[in-house]
Amino acid sequence: MTTESGTSQAPRPVGVAVLGHGTVGAEVVRIIRDDATDLEARIGAPLELRGVAVRTVSEDRGIPVELLTTDAESLIARDDVDIVVEVIGGIDLPRKLVRAALDAGKSVVTANKALLAEYTGELAEAAEAKHVDLYFEAAVAGAIPVIRPLTQSLAGDRVNRVIGIVNGTTNYILSAMDETGADYAEALAEAGRLGYAEADPTADVEGFDAASKAAILASIAFHTRVTAGDVYREGISKISAADLTSARALNCNVKLLAICERITTDDGKDKVSARVYPALVPREHPLASVSGAFNAVVVEAEASGRLMFYGQGAGGAPTASAVMGDLVMAARNRVQGGRGPRESKYADLEIAPMSEIVTRYYVNLQVADRAGVLSAVAAEFAKRGVSISAVRQEGAGNGARLVVLTHRATDEALSSTVAALDELESVTAVTSVLRLEGSAE
Amino acid sequence: MTTESGTSQAPRPVGVAVLGHGTVGAEVVRIIRDDATDLEARIGAPLELRGVAVRTVSEDRGIPVELLTTDAESLIARDDVDIVVEVIGGIDLPRKLVRAALDAGKSVVTANKALLAEYTGELAEAAEAKHVDLYFEAAVAGAIPVIRPLTQSLAGDRVNRVIGIVNGTTNYILSAMDETGADYAEALAEAGRLGYAEADPTADVEGFDAASKAAILASIAFHTRVTAGDVYREGISKISAADLTSARALNCNVKLLAICERITTDDGKDKVSARVYPALVPREHPLASVSGAFNAVVVEAEASGRLMFYGQGAGGAPTASAVMGDLVMAARNRVQGGRGPRESKYADLEIAPMSEIVTRYYVNLQVADRAGVLSAVAAEFAKRGVSISAVRQEGAGNGARLVVLTHRATDEALSSTVAALDELESVTAVTSVLRLEGSAE
Repeated sequence: MTTESGTSQAPRPVGVAVLGHGTVGAEVVRIIRDDATDLEARIGAPLELRGVAVRTVSEDRGIPVELLTTDAESLIARDDVDIVVEVIGGIDLPRKLVRAALDAGKSVVTANKALLAEYTGELAEAAEAKHVDLYFEAAVAGAIPVIRPLTQSLAGDRVNRVIGIVNGTTNYILSAMDETGADYAEALAEAGRLGYAEADPTADVEGFDAASKAAILASIAFHTRVTAGDVYREGISKISAADLTSARALNCNVKLLAICERITTDDGKDKVSARVYPALVPREHPLASVSGAFNAVVVEAEASGRLMFYGQGAGGAPTASAVMGDLVMAARNRVQGGRGPRESKYADLEIAPMSEIVTRYYVNLQVADRAGVLSAVAAEFAKRGVSISAVRQEGAGNGARLVVLTHRATDEALSSTVAALDELESVTAVTSVLRLEGSAE
Repeated sequence: MTTESGTSQAPRPVGVAVLGHGTVGAEVVRIIRDDATDLEARIGAPLELRGVAVRTVSEDRGIPVELLTTDAESLIARDDVDIVVEVIGGIDLPRKLVRAALDAGKSVVTANKALLAEYTGELAEAAEAKHVDLYFEAAVAGAIPVIRPLTQSLAGDRVNRVIGIVNGTTNYILSAMDETGADYAEALAEAGRLGYAEADPTADVEGFDAASKAAILASIAFHTRVTAGDVYREGISKISAADLTSARALNCNVKLLAICERITTDDGKDKVSARVYPALVPREHPLASVSGAFNAVVVEAEASGRLMFYGQGAGGAPTASAVMGDLVMAARNRVQGGRGPRESKYADLEIAPMSEIVTRYYVNLQVADRAGVLSAVAAEFAKRGVSISAVRQEGAGNGARLVVLTHRATDEALSSTVAALDELESVTAVTSVLRLEGSAE
């Protein structure tokens, strides 16, 4: 190709294969084709689209039909493909294809959090063996740069905590519940109508998507392999309108948080905690005001202090922006030599079990409206060393409720307290238990 | 090198020279010495401090006196120095030393915005000639990753606008004026007492520091060389308590903004505007709530949408965090081969003169309190095609004021309107003119 131009100076083009042509893939293909001049100037060589792997070839995709193929493996194997962009979704097929690409010495850019949360180790080793890049900025928080700041900008700092709102669907639902007073089912239905929730919303509302992202963030922040299975997970489907009312009374919002934390045990040993659950967040915390389908990630490191990154965490164009940044970097490395940061897992910290995690709690109890109830309830907390910060009674008679806010306690102590409260004759039901995160105390 | 070749020999250490031992330099030296084990694991080779160049060697700096030298040039020239960290400040001396380091084939990490805003071109060419890295994340917004997201994460996107609060001193002063009702002189004095303002605050309060940062951001965002002299600049020293009161009445805050914008002229030509001035910002804009000494940068790009980066923009530890990130990346490149992104100036856009810039304006006039004044004032706006969005009279008699808020107009039209208002018999004085940025309209 370069010989046709007659100059031996013209750099060899960088060939790209895109696997998948959904909302993200279509936008990536559009940018590669529409912004070719800019991309060439930034890379130092033309970026050429070799083909797009799809499930069914059809003429109405807005790209020349000869670029389409259902044979992803042959596309990947082409000699003139240097970089493979994987935006299919799922785990098994992309795992096979990404492996094939890396094994064939192609760099890979993927937005696939579910794949990475299980198989980063395997894929990073395959990339290492062939000295190629494996980039995945788009896997966490869409267009918001989070992976690169953690792996590069904070490479000389000591990260203690990453806490984020990394799922737009659940944040939309919780924001809607807060703003309109809707209950969970209504808000979910509305999110579905507006395209913020999928037909089967399980991965989002039960926290699986956020847990994948937590695994990726924790791995990078703490130089330790953390997989989705290491992440403690609770979803938002049990959050009630009453919880949001109680949260408001406590000057808090309810947010589904992905929390990655360095825990130092009493004997001075560092462990990693990665967990996803809905939590009360004080309104003055920067994450409390992140509403609708937006994402935000707060990073706390020793020297940098608290940083926050905010923007659109999903959608075709924002995700494509992150994919394109990775693609340009991988292409530059092809042209100029060099590689991006590799997997860093030297710290190899132990995963802290949930029972050791210390947070504050909000406990909502339905109680008998009679003298002595508060004393009985308070005694159960005291017995297990869980100190109460505030108690409020709401309603009266059969609808009487106690809202208890604790000081910091271990999950273990709280769980056994809740179990004991459930047995108390004067407690009709433990309606809900939520953690409180991000408070000053 | 050894990692790639697979030899079992211990990797050659990476030698570092630090120029300057002020608040940032001291923190960088501390981290290099205290976190040696982590840094080695992340780099793949030990990071060894060869020496620290200071103006005067003294024993009370908390580091072994044999590491100190007043001879920066000899330190830089040492064969076992691979990377030079420049945290001296000023322009002439660091320019000479950074040039010497690059010319000698050493990679350079600098936090020096004033130097970069003048000489990035010269220094980038020197780095290019020797195939070494020139990193400067710490030059803009301290620990907040901004340079790396712009050069890497958004490398495949089209940035349209970067707008930031990038000077902590002025933001502290403006926040204090807003919160306490203090006037400028009082707030400046308080900032000085608390260590947020230097003895000579000119560089901060007159916008020179922010203009340097705007030049750096605009260069990177728009792939065009922009120097400090290209940046239109106004400081905050003329902002009055009355301006803040008026801003509040308009539901705005006053912020010193660094604005880097892609302007498309009527004939479809792209130009770059880089400017620094205090402006009214609607309270619902994400920058409006950035208070005290904090920094934040909003980036608007075509595919990514609006992103925001927030954190501590100054101080020894946060700035050192950014320097250390760059240092680890430069060291990794030494060990593993490869280089970071080079200067990108291919777009070479023209700098738009201030007269072409279109924004909204707030104009505060002291007027005679009599019939017909509003009509006369409005006529001057209308004559020049400046459409008025809102007018409010404040006070009465001799203290009567008109506060005019315009729709979008060119700076040229507004300037000539203000000149004409100044000549009007019924206008006693044009008390202040501020731009309004970030409004939806």
